Amino acid sequence: MASLNNKILLGHGSGGKLMHGLIRELLLKKLDNPVLKELSDSALIPYQEKLAFSTDSFVVSPLFFPGADIAKLAVCGTVNDLVMQGARPEYLSLALIVEEGLDYRILARVVDSLSKNARKAGVFFVTGDLKVVEKGSCDKLFINTSGIGRTVYKKDLSVRNICPGDRVILTGNIAQHGLAVLSKRKELDLELGVKSDCAALNRLILPVIAKTSSVKFMRDPTRGGLATTLNEIAEASKSGIIIEERNIPISQKVRAASELLGIDPLYVANEGIAVMIVAAHAAEKVLCLLKRHPLGKNSRIIASVTREPRGRVILKTILGTERIVDMLVSDPLPRIC
Amino acid sequence: MASLNNKILLGHGSGGKLMHGLIRELLLKKLDNPVLKELSDSALIPYQEKLAFSTDSFVVSPLFFPGADIAKLAVCGTVNDLVMQGARPEYLSLALIVEEGLDYRILARVVDSLSKNARKAGVFFVTGDLKVVEKGSCDKLFINTSGIGRTVYKKDLSVRNICPGDRVILTGNIAQHGLAVLSKRKELDLELGVKSDCAALNRLILPVIAKTSSVKFMRDPTRGGLATTLNEIAEASKSGIIIEERNIPISQKVRAASELLGIDPLYVANEGIAVMIVAAHAAEKVLCLLKRHPLGKNSRIIASVTREPRGRVILKTILGTERIVDMLVSDPLPRIC
Repeated sequence: MASLNNKILLGHGSGGKLMHGLIRELLLKKLDNPVLKELSDSALIPYQEKLAFSTDSFVVSPLFFPGADIAKLAVCGTVNDLVMQGARPEYLSLALIVEEGLDYRILARVVDSLSKNARKAGVFFVTGDLKVVEKGSCDKLFINTSGIGRTVYKKDLSVRNICPGDRVILTGNIAQHGLAVLSKRKELDLELGVKSDCAALNRLILPVIAKTSSVKFMRDPTRGGLATTLNEIAEASKSGIIIEERNIPISQKVRAASELLGIDPLYVANEGIAVMIVAAHAAEKVLCLLKRHPLGKNSRIIASVTREPRGRVILKTILGTERIVDMLVSDPLPRIC
Repeated sequence: MASLNNKILLGHGSGGKLMHGLIRELLLKKLDNPVLKELSDSALIPYQEKLAFSTDSFVVSPLFFPGADIAKLAVCGTVNDLVMQGARPEYLSLALIVEEGLDYRILARVVDSLSKNARKAGVFFVTGDLKVVEKGSCDKLFINTSGIGRTVYKKDLSVRNICPGDRVILTGNIAQHGLAVLSKRKELDLELGVKSDCAALNRLILPVIAKTSSVKFMRDPTRGGLATTLNEIAEASKSGIIIEERNIPISQKVRAASELLGIDPLYVANEGIAVMIVAAHAAEKVLCLLKRHPLGKNSRIIASVTREPRGRVILKTILGTERIVDMLVSDPLPRIC
C-alpha cells in the first residue's frame, strides 16, 4: 500500500492486487459490516415488506464545502429519496469513479465522511464498486449511491392523493446548500457565511409519519429548488399552489447572499429539507411534530393547494402582489450535487 | 426539445424544464414500465424473499465496440453480479453522468441499447438519475446500474463451501471482451476480428442451478480476467487450484491476437462467462446442462480444487510444465468496463 501515501494510480481500479489493497485497507476498514464483509458481487439482504429503491450520482464541485462534502451528500441524498417514499432507509451501495492521480488523502477523507454519515443515518453500505479513469477523464471523484429501504408509512404517498385545501409544509430554511457550494467555487471563493443544510431526514420525518395518515406526498427540493419541486407537484396533481412569500423560511444570510449574487433563492438547491403535502385538518399537528426535532425547528406552512390555476404555482409576495413562479429552465449553478 | 437535435447542454442536468424534457422524450419512452412511470424519488417494489443487491459503474472507452457497447455492459454486468449470487435479477436503477456537448444521437443510441438489453435480460429499470457535467469533467458518458433480485438457489453460495476435489467449470471462451474493447481504442484501431462476449447470464445459469444443489460458488471473471478470479477464490477458500491449460476454452482469433499484442489472455476481462465451483460428482451433469444453452456451448471443466498449495493457482501448461498464476497487479487495459 506504499503507493497510497500519495496518488491514486490507474491500477487501483484494475481488479488486481492494487485494487484489493485499496479496498481492504481503506474501504472495508471504514465501512465495515457483516453483509459487506462477504465481498461478493452483490449483497444478500433478507426482506419481507415492500421495498423502496433509489439511485443518485454525485458530481458536486468542489468536493468539500461549508457544512458538508460529496460523501455526506451521497449518503443523505439517497437516504432522503427513500424517506420521501415513506421508507426506512437500510442498505446502500457505493460506486466510486476516481480520477487517476487523485491525492490518496482526499479519497481517505471522503471514505471517512461516508462512514461517519452512514453511521449517523443508521444505514449500511453492503455492496460496492471502484473504477479509476485516466487523468482528465473525470473531475477528481464521482460517487453513486443506490439505496433500499422498507416502506413504513401505511398509506400511499402519491400526487394523485393531493386535493384543493391541502397545505404545503416546508421543513426548514431554503437555498442554503446551493449557496454554500457556490461560495466555494474556485472562481468565486466568496465568504457568504452560508452552510449547506445537507442532512439525512429519516430521523426527522419517519417519527412524524408514524403518527399520522394525513401526509399525502413528500419530496425534497434539491436541484431546481423549491420553485421547481412545487411546479412538479402542481403539474402532476393538476392543482394550483399558492405560496405565501412571508411564510417561506429563509435565513438573513441567505437572503443577503442571494441579493448580492442576483439569484432567486426559490431556485437554489436544498439537501436537508422536505416539502410535505398534508391534509388541511392535520397540518398544524404535523407542523408541531416536525418542530420537536432540531432539523425541523424552522418548519412552516408555506402554501395551499387550490383548484385553479391548474398546474401553476403562484407567489403572493410580501408586497401583496402576485406572480407566477415557473419551473427552472436551465441551471444557474451546475454540479451542485 | 429542439436543442436535443444536437448537443447535450449543462441545463439538461439542472433539474429544470430541459431535464424534464430529456427524461420524458428519451428515457421514459425507451425504458417504460409501471414502476418507473411514477417518477418518484425511489421505486417501490414488493418483495417476500431474500434479496441480492449489487452496483457497478461503467466507464468503458470507447462507448461502442465489437459485440457490445457501454449500455449492454451496464445491463449485463449488474445482471451477472446478481446471478453469481444465485439470484434472479428483476429491477435495475440507472444513473447517467453525461459530458456537456455530447451528441444527442449518442445518448439516444445508448438508451436504445439499454432498453433492448434490459428487455432481452428480462429486467426493468425502475428508478434513475441524470447528471450533466461541464465539457472536460468526464469522458463522454458514465453509467451506473444497481440491481436487485430475489435469490432462487436453495443453498448458500460461498467460498467457505469449497473443498479439495471440487471442479472448476468455465462457461465459455476467455478474453474476448478485453480484446474487443482494445481493438477499438482510437490509438490502436486494430482489426483483430474479436467480439466482446458481453451477455446476460441469467438465462444460462438459473435453469442449471435450479436442477442441482452441487454448485458451491460462482463468479464472473471480469476485470483482472480468469487468473485474478481464480486467485481470489483460492485465497478466500484457502485451497489450491490446478488449471489444465489445454482445457481452457479460447478461440483461435483470441489466441492469435493475444500473441500479437503480447498479452496473457488469462488476465483479460470477460463479460459473458462464469466460473462455477462444483462438487466433483456433479461436474459432468452441470457441464451437460450448461452446454444445452447457446451461451454455454463452450463450457469446460478447466481446473480442480486441491489442498495444496494453499491460496495459490497453478497452471499445468500444454507443454507439461507447471507455473504459478499470480493475481493481476495493475491493469494492462484500463477502462475495459
